[in-house]
Amino acid sequence: MRNVAVVGYGLSKFGERWEAGLKELVSEAAVAAINASGVEPKQIQCLFTGAMSSGRFANQEHLGALVADQLGLTPIPSVRVEAACASGGVAVRQAYLALASGAYDLALVVGVEKMTDIDVGHATTTLGTAGDYEWEVFHGATFPALYAMMARRHMHDFGTKEEQMAMVSVKNHSNGSKNKFAQFQNLITVDAVLNSSVVASPLKLLDCSPITDGAAAIVMASENLARKFTDAPVWIAGSAQASDTLALHDRESLTSLKATKVAAEYAYKQANVRPNDIKVAEVHDCFSIAEILAIEDLGFFNKGYGGKAVEEGETQLNSKISVNSSGGLKACGHPVGATGVKQIVELTMQLRNEAGARQVSNADIGLAHNVGGSGATAVVHVLRR
Amino acid sequence: MRNVAVVGYGLSKFGERWEAGLKELVSEAAVAAINASGVEPKQIQCLFTGAMSSGRFANQEHLGALVADQLGLTPIPSVRVEAACASGGVAVRQAYLALASGAYDLALVVGVEKMTDIDVGHATTTLGTAGDYEWEVFHGATFPALYAMMARRHMHDFGTKEEQMAMVSVKNHSNGSKNKFAQFQNLITVDAVLNSSVVASPLKLLDCSPITDGAAAIVMASENLARKFTDAPVWIAGSAQASDTLALHDRESLTSLKATKVAAEYAYKQANVRPNDIKVAEVHDCFSIAEILAIEDLGFFNKGYGGKAVEEGETQLNSKISVNSSGGLKACGHPVGATGVKQIVELTMQLRNEAGARQVSNADIGLAHNVGGSGATAVVHVLRR
Repeated sequence: MRNVAVVGYGLSKFGERWEAGLKELVSEAAVAAINASGVEPKQIQCLFTGAMSSGRFANQEHLGALVADQLGLTPIPSVRVEAACASGGVAVRQAYLALASGAYDLALVVGVEKMTDIDVGHATTTLGTAGDYEWEVFHGATFPALYAMMARRHMHDFGTKEEQMAMVSVKNHSNGSKNKFAQFQNLITVDAVLNSSVVASPLKLLDCSPITDGAAAIVMASENLARKFTDAPVWIAGSAQASDTLALHDRESLTSLKATKVAAEYAYKQANVRPNDIKVAEVHDCFSIAEILAIEDLGFFNKGYGGKAVEEGETQLNSKISVNSSGGLKACGHPVGATGVKQIVELTMQLRNEAGARQVSNADIGLAHNVGGSGATAVVHVLRR
Repeated sequence: MRNVAVVGYGLSKFGERWEAGLKELVSEAAVAAINASGVEPKQIQCLFTGAMSSGRFANQEHLGALVADQLGLTPIPSVRVEAACASGGVAVRQAYLALASGAYDLALVVGVEKMTDIDVGHATTTLGTAGDYEWEVFHGATFPALYAMMARRHMHDFGTKEEQMAMVSVKNHSNGSKNKFAQFQNLITVDAVLNSSVVASPLKLLDCSPITDGAAAIVMASENLARKFTDAPVWIAGSAQASDTLALHDRESLTSLKATKVAAEYAYKQANVRPNDIKVAEVHDCFSIAEILAIEDLGFFNKGYGGKAVEEGETQLNSKISVNSSGGLKACGHPVGATGVKQIVELTMQLRNEAGARQVSNADIGLAHNVGGSGATAVVHVLRR
């Protein structure tokens, strides 16, 4: 297997993009990535697109062909992958494998979701298709409810407080305020989170990531080509994916995602790093409790200490580990298929010292953690400069 | 890149499976494939699932995790790919690349679609999401209309007759009558096709593939393992995929699918065979005209001669080339995500001399041709025993 690097990246503005459709979002991010990479479009040999539910959100399946068509890259092979909210991370991993294998030398990865063309109720039901329809969604257990149960159990077992969860959102809005692509660039307070409307107790509105339109793209190259396009390639040092039961009630634990732990173990081993080596991490904070689970399951903090770590400021920019410098899903926004690719974009910016006001000093090793559903899929990538 | 073989296969019964959900269909095909392969479930290292629009058909996305969960194969990585009606073929190709690369040694591929839980009108609209929503489906141009335009142009340019198209359906029903997994096992006549209700002129009901529930599965192994599991591995000699514009009006031709031609060229080259070497082919007959386009674009017959070739019986079992011995999409049925995998199952049966009453004599090289939408994706595999 060959080494693979990210050599260019691009983002669309994240937010309620009522003036842009699926195709426009794709173009915005992908053209920026291609231009930034210095790659000629005709050099690109394969395409991977991550999108969760474009069929329901935008009446459009066949996203692989759509992206190739929209970018004028036909007739190259173009594959759309879907793994709920981990679709972007899986797309990155499929491209990594395609290049590492020697099958191709240059790939474009696009993550996209156009979510605001349907109303919030239908969007929540559509997001629910990431869970077990027969056992969860059909009975009304959509994602706020599922994560609320995880939060309750974490509070019960480890004394985690609603204030600590709120602090995740406060931190991520602070980081997002330094990101011009973020959906929310406003600062919020712990009181604002605690006083926002209850969605599924103990989760309030400001504990939840929003519904977002957006796209992210990266150009990836095999080691023999990477340095031709950039002096600052960012290497995929570890790449792993794991699965777990779709339904929460089938899991051994409500306070830990086994898929995250399994994927992280493989990725750390491949990259030959330990959790303490990670300086900057983009983790899957679809709800505030999810970031607390993630920083524990990824080994940054001991199980049960996540809430306390947030409270102590150990996950803020330039602290022990800078978590979600982009603003995370909460503040940067969560166009589900784009999120996993956006995480790689953010880490690439950080490792190349291009993150501006939110730059983490000495960022040399980064980790991206992308979760599908309530944890039935997890993808972990370790990046090095 | 290493050689890769199919070492086991399984099918669910295709049809209106009102008693079975998505999960049951997956189990039916996958358990059969695993048992037939002699592989222990825990030896399987990765999963690829092809499904087109489970989110709309069955309120269920996140199919990769669902399949791993349903089969008790967690926590292995499980990827769902979508390329409209070519989803199954793309899943096979992704598994092929994963094994050829050396990343994994054993993979399970599942194709599935549960289509009959929604009504026919919604099913047609959902199938329409494989086209260009903004330029085609939104204006009412669903797939029967798009293929009808291709048929009209083929009739205009080459004198192809409605009777010749009808003969595709008659042949495929004849083949399907010898396949116990087929949705339709009844014989039909040219008159029956010509007198069936008009769907989109010149296409009648019996020119169109049906709406089907079904699943197909194969176990694939890298060359170092294949012979441990079977004395009759069927090798993937060529694997290629290509893309084209989503919308029909953007194409150079209405009577030829460029993606098919590009993919076939690559696959023939990799396999080092010519069209005339192919003894048995499963081609994408979503409509009768599509089989005529396919046998021309794949190089079995000269452009424009496809209708005549069918009329002359050159595509029947044990003729010049045996096309759609399974019954094709028309008679075997077309559970869209399953079709591309079912094609590989049929070829494996033929190349292993296990096809019973529909066995093609001396079947040593086979070809599978799977199309997404009106041709924006095409996948071609060449198989050898």
